[in-house]
Amino acid sequence: MKAALHAYLAEAIPLYRAMEATVADADTGSVALVAPLAPNTNHQSTAFGGSVASLATLACWGWLWVLLRDAGIDARLVVARSEIDYLKPVLTALNARCNAPASATTRVFLDGLARKGRARIELEAVVTDDAGVVCARFTGRFVASAAG
Amino acid sequence: MKAALHAYLAEAIPLYRAMEATVADADTGSVALVAPLAPNTNHQSTAFGGSVASLATLACWGWLWVLLRDAGIDARLVVARSEIDYLKPVLTALNARCNAPASATTRVFLDGLARKGRARIELEAVVTDDAGVVCARFTGRFVASAAG
Repeated sequence: MKAALHAYLAEAIPLYRAMEATVADADTGSVALVAPLAPNTNHQSTAFGGSVASLATLACWGWLWVLLRDAGIDARLVVARSEIDYLKPVLTALNARCNAPASATTRVFLDGLARKGRARIELEAVVTDDAGVVCARFTGRFVASAAG
Repeated sequence: MKAALHAYLAEAIPLYRAMEATVADADTGSVALVAPLAPNTNHQSTAFGGSVASLATLACWGWLWVLLRDAGIDARLVVARSEIDYLKPVLTALNARCNAPASATTRVFLDGLARKGRARIELEAVVTDDAGVVCARFTGRFVASAAG
């Protein structure tokens, strides 16, 4: 799943390539993305907030992609809203991880998608530095629509 | 101010260059940034949410930069938190604009920075398509710390 998700993101999203991001983990339990600091830096040589938010968005979006692919469901996935708290500057590579939400949340989402052809889900990601310090917390609302 | 802001962002932030963004307007009344769709697209050939959020973040950050430069104040500017609602897909170039907040808000911010060496301010940006349709609304909290 790791290689498939990376290939998909790298092909579809030029900014993912520009960030030089890669997929560190990708299964239905969690998706983790990593990006080096250099292409994602700001005026202070720490990570640019836009890069941090983009990587967190893609970790959540990627987890949904993995979930639906694993379930054999073809759906269109979009982010509808998000919020992010920047807690500390990132001085190393950026690590964004989205863990699976409670299984009841996933079940309600998949049931809704099956029944109504459309469902939404709230997902969280954390962005850590290479020492594992939490530098940002992200929450996003994602909407899936059945394809075709 | 337009050329100076563009030069600053292009030099400091690799993602700004990767997005091929430019400054359309930059004065103390508002800052507007534009980026073409191609380097900012997603899997559906609409604008990638991370690009939309990044451009909105930079429009607000840029407005603060212009405000402080105009006032002759040297300060470090960071984004502390933000939220964004993605209302419609962007199918054209991305246009992000941050208008100056109420003048009382700006005054409180500048006074706080002068007195305490640190102040925060909430700024809003809208992202529109080339037809002027509002596609996303962004709110960010920015913190300025006096340099030196």
